[in-house]
Amino acid sequence: GGGLVAYSESQSEPGSPASEHGEKEREKKRVVLLGTGWAGISFLKDLDVSSYDVQVVSPQNYFAFTPLLPSVTCGTVEARSIAEPVRNIIKKRNAEIQFWEAEAIKIDAAKNEVFCKSNIDKETRDFSLEYDYLIIAVGAQVNTFGTPGVLENCHFLKELEDAQKIRRTVTDCFEKAVLPGLSEEERKRNLHFVIVGGGPTGVEFAAELHDYIQEDLINLYPTVKDLVRITLIQSGDHILNSFDERISSFAEKKFQRDGIEVLTECRVVNVSDKEITMKIKSTGAVCSIPHGLVLWSTGVGTRPAIKDFMEQIGQGKRRVLATNEWLRVKECENVYALGDCATIDQRKVMEDISTIFAAADKDNSGTLTVEEFQDVIDDILIRYPQVELYLKNKHLNDVTDLLKDPQGNPRREVDIEGFTLALSHVDTQMKSLPATAQVAAQQGAYLARNFNRRQQCKEHPEGPRRFRGLGRHHFRPFRYKHFGQFAPLGGEQAAAELPGDWVSMGHSTQWLWYSVYASKQVSWRTRVLVVSDWTRRFIFGRDSSRI
Amino acid sequence: GGGLVAYSESQSEPGSPASEHGEKEREKKRVVLLGTGWAGISFLKDLDVSSYDVQVVSPQNYFAFTPLLPSVTCGTVEARSIAEPVRNIIKKRNAEIQFWEAEAIKIDAAKNEVFCKSNIDKETRDFSLEYDYLIIAVGAQVNTFGTPGVLENCHFLKELEDAQKIRRTVTDCFEKAVLPGLSEEERKRNLHFVIVGGGPTGVEFAAELHDYIQEDLINLYPTVKDLVRITLIQSGDHILNSFDERISSFAEKKFQRDGIEVLTECRVVNVSDKEITMKIKSTGAVCSIPHGLVLWSTGVGTRPAIKDFMEQIGQGKRRVLATNEWLRVKECENVYALGDCATIDQRKVMEDISTIFAAADKDNSGTLTVEEFQDVIDDILIRYPQVELYLKNKHLNDVTDLLKDPQGNPRREVDIEGFTLALSHVDTQMKSLPATAQVAAQQGAYLARNFNRRQQCKEHPEGPRRFRGLGRHHFRPFRYKHFGQFAPLGGEQAAAELPGDWVSMGHSTQWLWYSVYASKQVSWRTRVLVVSDWTRRFIFGRDSSRI
Ligand SMILES: Cc1cc2nc3c(=O)[nH]c(=O)nc-3n(C[C@H](O)[C@H](O)[C@H](O)COP(=O)(O)OP(=O)(O)OC[C@H]3O[C@@H](n4cnc5c(N)ncnc54)[C@H](O)[C@@H]3O)c2cc1C
Ligand SMILES: Cc1cc2nc3c(=O)[nH]c(=O)nc-3n(C[C@H](O)[C@H](O)[C@H](O)COP(=O)(O)OP(=O)(O)OC[C@H]3O[C@@H](n4cnc5c(N)ncnc54)[C@H](O)[C@@H]3O)c2cc1C
Repeated sequence: GGGLVAYSESQSEPGSPASEHGEKEREKKRVVLLGTGWAGISFLKDLDVSSYDVQVVSPQNYFAFTPLLPSVTCGTVEARSIAEPVRNIIKKRNAEIQFWEAEAIKIDAAKNEVFCKSNIDKETRDFSLEYDYLIIAVGAQVNTFGTPGVLENCHFLKELEDAQKIRRTVTDCFEKAVLPGLSEEERKRNLHFVIVGGGPTGVEFAAELHDYIQEDLINLYPTVKDLVRITLIQSGDHILNSFDERISSFAEKKFQRDGIEVLTECRVVNVSDKEITMKIKSTGAVCSIPHGLVLWSTGVGTRPAIKDFMEQIGQGKRRVLATNEWLRVKECENVYALGDCATIDQRKVMEDISTIFAAADKDNSGTLTVEEFQDVIDDILIRYPQVELYLKNKHLNDVTDLLKDPQGNPRREVDIEGFTLALSHVDTQMKSLPATAQVAAQQGAYLARNFNRRQQCKEHPEGPRRFRGLGRHHFRPFRYKHFGQFAPLGGEQAAAELPGDWVSMGHSTQWLWYSVYASKQVSWRTRVLVVSDWTRRFIFGRDSSRI
Repeated sequence: GGGLVAYSESQSEPGSPASEHGEKEREKKRVVLLGTGWAGISFLKDLDVSSYDVQVVSPQNYFAFTPLLPSVTCGTVEARSIAEPVRNIIKKRNAEIQFWEAEAIKIDAAKNEVFCKSNIDKETRDFSLEYDYLIIAVGAQVNTFGTPGVLENCHFLKELEDAQKIRRTVTDCFEKAVLPGLSEEERKRNLHFVIVGGGPTGVEFAAELHDYIQEDLINLYPTVKDLVRITLIQSGDHILNSFDERISSFAEKKFQRDGIEVLTECRVVNVSDKEITMKIKSTGAVCSIPHGLVLWSTGVGTRPAIKDFMEQIGQGKRRVLATNEWLRVKECENVYALGDCATIDQRKVMEDISTIFAAADKDNSGTLTVEEFQDVIDDILIRYPQVELYLKNKHLNDVTDLLKDPQGNPRREVDIEGFTLALSHVDTQMKSLPATAQVAAQQGAYLARNFNRRQQCKEHPEGPRRFRGLGRHHFRPFRYKHFGQFAPLGGEQAAAELPGDWVSMGHSTQWLWYSVYASKQVSWRTRVLVVSDWTRRFIFGRDSSRI
């Protein structure tokens, strides 16, 4: 139970310092942040909390270092070692940040109000928060694509609790498989581990599980060691298909050697408590295999509160909440969205081609000289990152090369048609950012910086020239910097894709991976804990108690 | 689901090595052990597993180091650090021990068969095991004394899961207390922690919780720090009343300084989700106080399967399963019981006084000379430990002092009346052993030793002379050796009661306590883990994430 309590600053609350600080406090704009994942925490860590009244709402009272989640499923790393309590982070920043363990259930964009529901230990309580600025960083949720039985019978790997549940279930599967009186079939079923989804999470879990079984479990359950099977089901034609193809085939070969079965071009159509049914794309055949555990690690969806908000602001037809290049939600003055729950709707050059031309054509001559073009190119490159990507892909060193005629000869000037033709392909280089921690963290830091410099940049704008308006944008748009990605493949092997097309595979990469994660850990605390977990595992093996 | 499967050795099972080892295996007697707590594991560790076919049944696939359970509730030590997987222990011993994660639900004493039910991950399966020897070490269960609402609304602290749940709930209470829109009363209710039971567990939890709140939580929830309250309710007149009274008053004074409220002479009559109701013994007044969390840590009861077994063997009227001094269940040839689930029914000297006299009176003279008495006194001391306790309490150095006449003059001989009079008070010294890990572990080791020497001691009995029969007992009866007890009181203080009436209180005792537990840890693994947890806490504080 618990009624809806409207919460305003004037009320005296132990949870709110407003009353103590009085007038001074009320002058500050209130920032309400939803979510304490990569995006939210990175925003919070960089925000100048002295100039805002900050309120944080999240159903998780900790931040989880997701890249190590697959390691938690097998006990290589302990759950607690990769979690940092939000209140510890807040304590380090400033005591004036409010945190509430609750879920945002509805955003009222017209009234600048968020309705929240706390559901702690089975007691529910509703309250609402007013905001001047709202930061939405609630991440994504699992997407079952409506496949029957998935929600009821599959494991997921989004949260720490999921990882702990998987860890317990793996042990359970072995304990069940050795019980007296079972048929060989039943033992085999219990020991068949199925992973749906050949992305980094699925691949890493398969690799971790394989190591855990080979290094620890078969010694503890020697009588059933030959009955264990791991199968990875992928709807595409290769696993790790977002990686360089050298990595994806390295991974496939490694899995083949390890005896991890990879089924590609298969679509799961149903999951029951004991069987998983799939359709083989090429033949259309439908087949079922018995399983002991299924990990569903494919697809992300939008949370219901965000869906509802999208309806309100006219984004009802979109799949994901869209923001502009400054991470502001389209059609909302004071709402920002970042991380997995949002996508940047990059403006196309072609949409703006005539305004760009008009702005560049200073003397209104109807043609653009090389000098006029050079004068605006920096602003174009900042405003439309696809242009730079296009140049890089075409191996063009100089932007003025764009102005060359179709035969490749330099031109002194172009008219609007020539200009349009020159840039007509750049928009093909637009791609949406991946749903990764790297993107989320960079967006959080970017947005915090803008908030910190709000006043300053209003007076001295630092963004590119406005082509469809006057003056300059206050801020530069968000730009993502890719630092590469890792795929640990088990057996102390890993594959890495590094910036500048570097690819690294094999043993030493695993150590690179260890060191990257040890250094990327958010606090010294988690850093030490994770390293000590690795040491513990190295010395004692993993722990199979079902706790 | 899952039908009842009769499991016999002749069946070929991956879980059973019987088929592989053939004839040789079948000659071995089968020992079925129920329970993997202190008693069971200590038995398993010392048993000569090469001479028995050993099968272990327990619903917990790990051994838990219970003395550190209270530390797990506040995250001073991690749950995993004090758990040792049973299969690790078995692996170290010998691969031929069978372990099944299941519960014994019924013992059929007539058929030498145990019915078991495994309930892993919501799948149930029944099976049965035949035994030549059955070892019952299933521990005790919580006793609510029928108090309404206790099962539904209280926490307990018997298992690791309980400790983890308490840890989460403490954080929950703080998160709930800081939510917006609550009245001061509601915040206070959420932050009122009540402990029922002033024994070592309750006292240690209160002390741990107090430290956790003062050292960590009030920094994370500064706005509510003055609303926290801890109350300990004890039905007796003092807390820690099984300890020396110096310790109990030291603890009471320490709690008073810490602001932990101790209510003595109160009996809890009802617990609802928000209130606890008690009766004050002296006045008969009934009062209710609101609470956020109640820990029920008083009273132990007998598990249903054991109750049922007691009915079968004619012990239906007893409270606890009774064994003889050799830990054999009374009226059962081949069933042993040890640890918290059983109690030793020590024979009284007075019951046997005439047979003792007759056996000692070798020349059948009707009187006992000092020499005749000295001849049997060793056997008496071994068979009836109360005699030794009596001598010690009366400060008698020489057993022959017992034979002195009422005026204290030595006598050369006594008749049966004189003999009965001399020993008439020794039975007052009989006391049942406490339900502690020390007792359970010693019993396990004792029983294993007897099992290992079964053949040898049959041929060369090492026990005392049988007074009511011929020859000697094969084994010496179990004798408990008390190594003292500790009560950590928080704030790096502890009280210890050591053998020989030593009492130690204060700071240094805490370190004694740390070192005792670090060295008592069952394996090197847990030892290192616990010490590293202490170090982690020392450096980083405790972790309040709700995981
Ligand atoms: C197993 C796994 C492994 C991964 N490995 C990598 C990797 O190696 N490298 C990499 O770059 N990325 C990795 N990722 C992806 C990365 O974790 C995500 O991209 C990143 O977490 C996105 O950050 P976010 O802040 O948008 O969302 P999240 O981190 O998911 O955080 C969302 C937050 O919002 C909260 N929330 C949810 N609903 C509500 C609500 N209604 N109201 C308020 N708060 C709410 C949640 O509790 C959470 O705190 C991995 C992901 C997974 C699942
Ligand atoms: C919080 C706490 C702190 C304590 N601190 C101390 C201390 O500091 N010093 C001390 O000496 N003692 C201490 N004790 C007491 C000590 O833990 C017990 O005396 C001891 O555990 C008894 O050992 P046991 O083997 O009889 O039972 P347990 O250790 O309780 O083990 C019982 C075993 O039987 C299993 N089992 C249960 N039901 C069944 C079934 N139906 N079939 C098969 N198996 C079953 C259980 O899973 C478990 O493995 C403490 C106890 C608690 C709860």
